[in-house]
Amino acid sequence: MKKLKVGIAGPGGIAKNAHIPGYQQHREAEVTAVFSRSVERAAAAARKFSIPQAYNDYSDMLNRAELDAVSICVPNKFHAEMTIQALEAGCHVFCEKPPAMSADEVRKMQQVAERTGKVLTFNLHNRHSREVQAIRSCGAAGELGHIYAARVHALRRRGIPGWGVFTDKELQGGGPLIDIGVHMLDTALYLMDYPEPDTVLAVSHQQIGPRTDAGLMGQWNPATFSVEDALMGLIRFKDGQSLVIETSFALNMEQAEQTQVELFGDRGGAAVFPPRLFQDKAGQPSNTEFPFLKNGNMSERSVADFVESCFGRKEPLVKVEEAVRLQQLIDALYQSADCGKAISI
Amino acid sequence: MKKLKVGIAGPGGIAKNAHIPGYQQHREAEVTAVFSRSVERAAAAARKFSIPQAYNDYSDMLNRAELDAVSICVPNKFHAEMTIQALEAGCHVFCEKPPAMSADEVRKMQQVAERTGKVLTFNLHNRHSREVQAIRSCGAAGELGHIYAARVHALRRRGIPGWGVFTDKELQGGGPLIDIGVHMLDTALYLMDYPEPDTVLAVSHQQIGPRTDAGLMGQWNPATFSVEDALMGLIRFKDGQSLVIETSFALNMEQAEQTQVELFGDRGGAAVFPPRLFQDKAGQPSNTEFPFLKNGNMSERSVADFVESCFGRKEPLVKVEEAVRLQQLIDALYQSADCGKAISI
Repeated sequence: MKKLKVGIAGPGGIAKNAHIPGYQQHREAEVTAVFSRSVERAAAAARKFSIPQAYNDYSDMLNRAELDAVSICVPNKFHAEMTIQALEAGCHVFCEKPPAMSADEVRKMQQVAERTGKVLTFNLHNRHSREVQAIRSCGAAGELGHIYAARVHALRRRGIPGWGVFTDKELQGGGPLIDIGVHMLDTALYLMDYPEPDTVLAVSHQQIGPRTDAGLMGQWNPATFSVEDALMGLIRFKDGQSLVIETSFALNMEQAEQTQVELFGDRGGAAVFPPRLFQDKAGQPSNTEFPFLKNGNMSERSVADFVESCFGRKEPLVKVEEAVRLQQLIDALYQSADCGKAISI
Repeated sequence: MKKLKVGIAGPGGIAKNAHIPGYQQHREAEVTAVFSRSVERAAAAARKFSIPQAYNDYSDMLNRAELDAVSICVPNKFHAEMTIQALEAGCHVFCEKPPAMSADEVRKMQQVAERTGKVLTFNLHNRHSREVQAIRSCGAAGELGHIYAARVHALRRRGIPGWGVFTDKELQGGGPLIDIGVHMLDTALYLMDYPEPDTVLAVSHQQIGPRTDAGLMGQWNPATFSVEDALMGLIRFKDGQSLVIETSFALNMEQAEQTQVELFGDRGGAAVFPPRLFQDKAGQPSNTEFPFLKNGNMSERSVADFVESCFGRKEPLVKVEEAVRLQQLIDALYQSADCGKAISI
């Protein structure tokens, strides 16, 4: 059996916790190379995960490792160029979220994927959760009717990451919106069949990150904190749907975290995490739960979806055109927050 | 002791449950007249509450009843003209919320109040709840620091009123925003010191009201339902604060009701109903509750505030200029929802 030979670009947390284990437990994939700009980090990851080849030059890996596919797990700033380079080298690409730093970049990635005929998809792993799929099935069965409104929460009280580059605008493009809001936004849009956006208004805040404070996810460096610590937005879609998004790394709220996607349809509503339906039945409002649903491992399923797609057996669940639209919305939310005005898309 | 002689315009639910009992338990006020366009309703209210005079002509009441003050409890459409008429007749006026149908109307009411030197205030009764006042005191003591963001929820699952004129746009000007959202919006703005708004985006929906469905607040008439059944909005203020408002009469959500105001400051956050503080203390996130706070009767305190103001002993808690700004925001939210674009204020 031919195995998919995969290279990992960027052996950070997401590679170690999701991509590498995902490939290594898949019977038709093997991680044969790993790249980091740091020789030490590349070698350490190779040792830890028994990866045969380690590179500190990305072109070298693409030229010499005879890869079928690459996972892009580097800071957001490098998503587009390293994805394009891998596609041009004849590799399929599985790129971490967010798709890139701008919709323009994602469009360029899309063009190269189309020209080279290689698979390009993105690790919006919520799509692969059984919770999201349960609500998706309910939606497809007409349980919600027309979904005309959504609420998206990706809020943390003191969840500024104390590691990595999450608070570096130059490398990441933004803070909670692009790091955690992006997952919930994609989940809502996916469940709404990715409607066409029309107008976006957003307000961002930076009040807590630039100072030292209690950290529930480690201690960040306030001196280099250059992203928003909260962003509130409203999207109006061309067909009149609304989506409210609230996302934060730090906000003086009650719980440590509020992570939720709620959908409001004319026949029923839904909350996704965990999945519940809110409908009228027997002339009474009724609530439905799914007490026996086990969520399992989203990352494994996300990696497996990519591997299957590389073998040509299916289309990836996350389509590049959806990634373009998602990034368009992120761009518009940030632009609106920056200029203080609504943005028409 | 001279008592304030009060006339009631519109003996509906709010008059019967709040205004009339409020005056009748106040030792310096007495309800001496009641007006309804329906002879029967005026007479029935007079009988029920032992009010000496009943009128079915408003001018008649103002000319003949020798009133010091009038409570305006009629449908929103008549707030402005009946308030102005009472002020011109030399009466102080206590007007039900919303202030009126538009900011222009409120400005006209304001001008007449200033010219006549009479008290004009509005029954935004949340201001008088001990919950709101507790958070107000905490804010004044610096516990929240700079409040830069707010969330306002006035959501009902199936709470379309099955009585009155609440679903008649012609008489009320709108649905949940102008009926229940207005209270929560005013509460947030009051606690934020009524910041100057800059840009507003809103999306309204009308999906459930125009059909027959389970009613948790009686059965409405779908054929005459002409208001929004939900509205989602985002306000950006001139100094960069944000306010998300979500309000509905009908929405397929989990609970029967979500009524909340949340404030996010750089030193602490707060939820108002019931009051809680979310702060960092001793290097740890901490939550503070007020387990012994008794809320008491907001309506009584609201009426008493008006009576005291009429006797010149204090300024009313709800200022007319705040009512103008509140109505400006309601106007802008509806305008934005109608035209599908953001509105600059």
